[in-house]
Amino acid sequence: MASLFLKTPGPSQSLPKTHKTHFVLPQNLPLSWRSKYRAGPAAARIRCGLIEPDGGKLVELIVEEPQRDLKRRQALSLPQIKLSKIDIQWVHVLSEGWASPLKGFMRESEFLQTLHFNSLRLGDGSVVNMSVPIVLAIDDSNKNNIGDSSSVALVDDKDNPIAILNDIEIYKHNKEERTARTWGTTAPGLPYAEQAITHAGNWLIGGDLEVIEPIKYHDGLDRFRLSPAELRDEFTRRNADAVFAFQLRNPVHNGHALLMTDTRRRLLEMGYKNPVLLLHPLGGYTKADDVPLEWRMKQHEMVLEDGVLDPETTVVSIFPSPMHYAGPTEVQWHAKARINAGANFYIVGRDPAGMGHPLEKRDLYDADHGKKVLSMAPGLERLNILPFKVAAYDKTQNGMAFFDPSRPQDFLFISGTKMRALAKNKENPPDGFMCPGGWKVLVDYYDSLTPSENGRVPEPVPV
Amino acid sequence: MASLFLKTPGPSQSLPKTHKTHFVLPQNLPLSWRSKYRAGPAAARIRCGLIEPDGGKLVELIVEEPQRDLKRRQALSLPQIKLSKIDIQWVHVLSEGWASPLKGFMRESEFLQTLHFNSLRLGDGSVVNMSVPIVLAIDDSNKNNIGDSSSVALVDDKDNPIAILNDIEIYKHNKEERTARTWGTTAPGLPYAEQAITHAGNWLIGGDLEVIEPIKYHDGLDRFRLSPAELRDEFTRRNADAVFAFQLRNPVHNGHALLMTDTRRRLLEMGYKNPVLLLHPLGGYTKADDVPLEWRMKQHEMVLEDGVLDPETTVVSIFPSPMHYAGPTEVQWHAKARINAGANFYIVGRDPAGMGHPLEKRDLYDADHGKKVLSMAPGLERLNILPFKVAAYDKTQNGMAFFDPSRPQDFLFISGTKMRALAKNKENPPDGFMCPGGWKVLVDYYDSLTPSENGRVPEPVPV
Repeated sequence: MASLFLKTPGPSQSLPKTHKTHFVLPQNLPLSWRSKYRAGPAAARIRCGLIEPDGGKLVELIVEEPQRDLKRRQALSLPQIKLSKIDIQWVHVLSEGWASPLKGFMRESEFLQTLHFNSLRLGDGSVVNMSVPIVLAIDDSNKNNIGDSSSVALVDDKDNPIAILNDIEIYKHNKEERTARTWGTTAPGLPYAEQAITHAGNWLIGGDLEVIEPIKYHDGLDRFRLSPAELRDEFTRRNADAVFAFQLRNPVHNGHALLMTDTRRRLLEMGYKNPVLLLHPLGGYTKADDVPLEWRMKQHEMVLEDGVLDPETTVVSIFPSPMHYAGPTEVQWHAKARINAGANFYIVGRDPAGMGHPLEKRDLYDADHGKKVLSMAPGLERLNILPFKVAAYDKTQNGMAFFDPSRPQDFLFISGTKMRALAKNKENPPDGFMCPGGWKVLVDYYDSLTPSENGRVPEPVPV
Repeated sequence: MASLFLKTPGPSQSLPKTHKTHFVLPQNLPLSWRSKYRAGPAAARIRCGLIEPDGGKLVELIVEEPQRDLKRRQALSLPQIKLSKIDIQWVHVLSEGWASPLKGFMRESEFLQTLHFNSLRLGDGSVVNMSVPIVLAIDDSNKNNIGDSSSVALVDDKDNPIAILNDIEIYKHNKEERTARTWGTTAPGLPYAEQAITHAGNWLIGGDLEVIEPIKYHDGLDRFRLSPAELRDEFTRRNADAVFAFQLRNPVHNGHALLMTDTRRRLLEMGYKNPVLLLHPLGGYTKADDVPLEWRMKQHEMVLEDGVLDPETTVVSIFPSPMHYAGPTEVQWHAKARINAGANFYIVGRDPAGMGHPLEKRDLYDADHGKKVLSMAPGLERLNILPFKVAAYDKTQNGMAFFDPSRPQDFLFISGTKMRALAKNKENPPDGFMCPGGWKVLVDYYDSLTPSENGRVPEPVPV
């Protein structure tokens, strides 16, 4: 009955079947319960604990079950646009309201506001943050094919209809300007740009989405892809009075764990009774040298099994967005999306969503700009920004600890590059850097990359 | 007595001495009058007619006469930074409050907000527009020289102190990111970037300005450089109940005049009793192939002499800002600065602040984006945007008229390029395109460019 809101309950292909309960299981609350829950006085009390979604109402764009066949038939009669994997990830993001109040791919006015102001002004004059263009590119032949139609069907690579885009608007895709204003550079070699912009069509098409059914990937991880509505229900069920989100796209080491535990301690000190951690690995497109999602999820599970984080106060779920690597611009999107999932605290790292400059020997962004821009961003005033405290390996304690500038000689900084190099070479990091089970997953991952004939480990394919 | 607020009353070197009264003359109101004027009940009534400056109070950073010698002496004891011509133009802009509420060159938080949000959030939570970075670049040796000093002296090319910058903050000048986010391209050949960024230092220095005396150029045009405060006084004196600003950096033709006259007519229809036009040519840095300021001012005067615009309801003054040619980003600055001068209506043209792409055969910006971005820009909600109606030469009327799409064959579009080509070749445009006196100025200007030995007219030097 309520199955339209359930995550695929099939067995995991990549995780052990005895997965831990702190990995959130799909909720089986029937729809009628939810409505009652939300309408009653208890709901009012509980809702006070969760931050409101942007625009006041969580956008949900998935067609209800009784209409799906009708929409599938309608899609067959419309001009078709084939979606890439990244396009489908954005349909997923939009369909569940991560980008609320966006109701579909951006029209030009939303695109321009995003590029110039990193925010959208709503009809009532209020402002919501929106820093990353969520757009769909089409080419000349698509455009000709659409002609005067006001709606188009969006289909996957096997021509299965995924969604209908209504009241469409087609406008120019100035790739150079989009890239310059989003990344602050137009240097060739930006992973997302190479993947999704450089070879994309010269037009963008915006409109209102009707997504025919929930987006699934059938990779054994769908049940961990909770929507903002499902996360809000989970936080409500746990009586969370604060939710702090931790975005990550890398393996978790004990420094991260220390930070998350310390954050909860600080929130308790602030007077919150039950702060809940949303440990929220990014699940969409990542660049080739990042560790793929399935291996990261295995690694996260081992770390959690190790008991470093408390299952009672930790929700692990997958954030379906693709990764831009657009630093201070993108970190706003990462934060804003988590507001829509109910988080009112956001932990921001050093150089969030940063990477090396594609051409020059330096980081693309100033390591402090992400934190600074986030703290000043329009539409994020309601979100509490928690700057990442720097953790490093403390040789006097044989474990990760917050860096103490009075005794720098005691600390060892292990960068992501260093960590990957160790795992590739099957070497061990110092004891206490990461739990042994988590480390083994990393070593296994690099082991799984069959060396090519010249003996070099090939670049892994992005998920 | 009130001389500190007077414009240089010296004779014009480049304009006929019998300049028309619709060229605004400096006001001789003593300071004490102004205060009384502003404090009394009449002032309250009159101020209702003029839009408030951004931040509620017009910033004025010029040191009062009694302190000037003291400040000059203080400047001698401080580390010195040499200003370029463009830097001095920005000091001018800042000193008179065109960029209110900015009190000096941007610190990093203002710079980042400008790049990412085109706006600044003030202490009270309100938002003002600020789209173009107003920054001062220094190099490594400047930075070393400053050491731990919290103030620096800004000096001209003859080491005369211009200003003191206090409570300084020095931060990285990421030229690529600044350019990408301001222009939406990093293509080499952007005039402002080549002039003021590419070869500038790798650091920016922000702080609070104390400008030792009003900035003067001694080019015979200083008396037309009215400050926002002086313009506000002038509009008040004329009992303006609406002020509509027209930014220009090109010769005025009869299509412009038609638009300005028509705008006044529309404002009268809206119920305003005395709408006043601020005809506001840009006076700072322009690219080499633009017509220099002194020739434009001569041309404007001839056009006004011709009686196309009513002197009673027209104020001609020079806007001291340098030109970025940054399209939709810069048009916001052009509009915002005019709010500070009292304008509550802004006429936006087709492709404002636009230019050709430096490398590709296309316009750098979509011609409609300026208008669209301006209408959505944060902090400009109080400003009424008046889109430029397209005027062209109507062959059936032998004059400029608003384009009528029902009879396109009757209209001739004369582009700026075409206009310049005609003037260079001493050919005449069709009768009624521009008054003969104005046209003669243009022809004289191109005539004044001595052909070089190979017979080609050299590129003029920017003012």
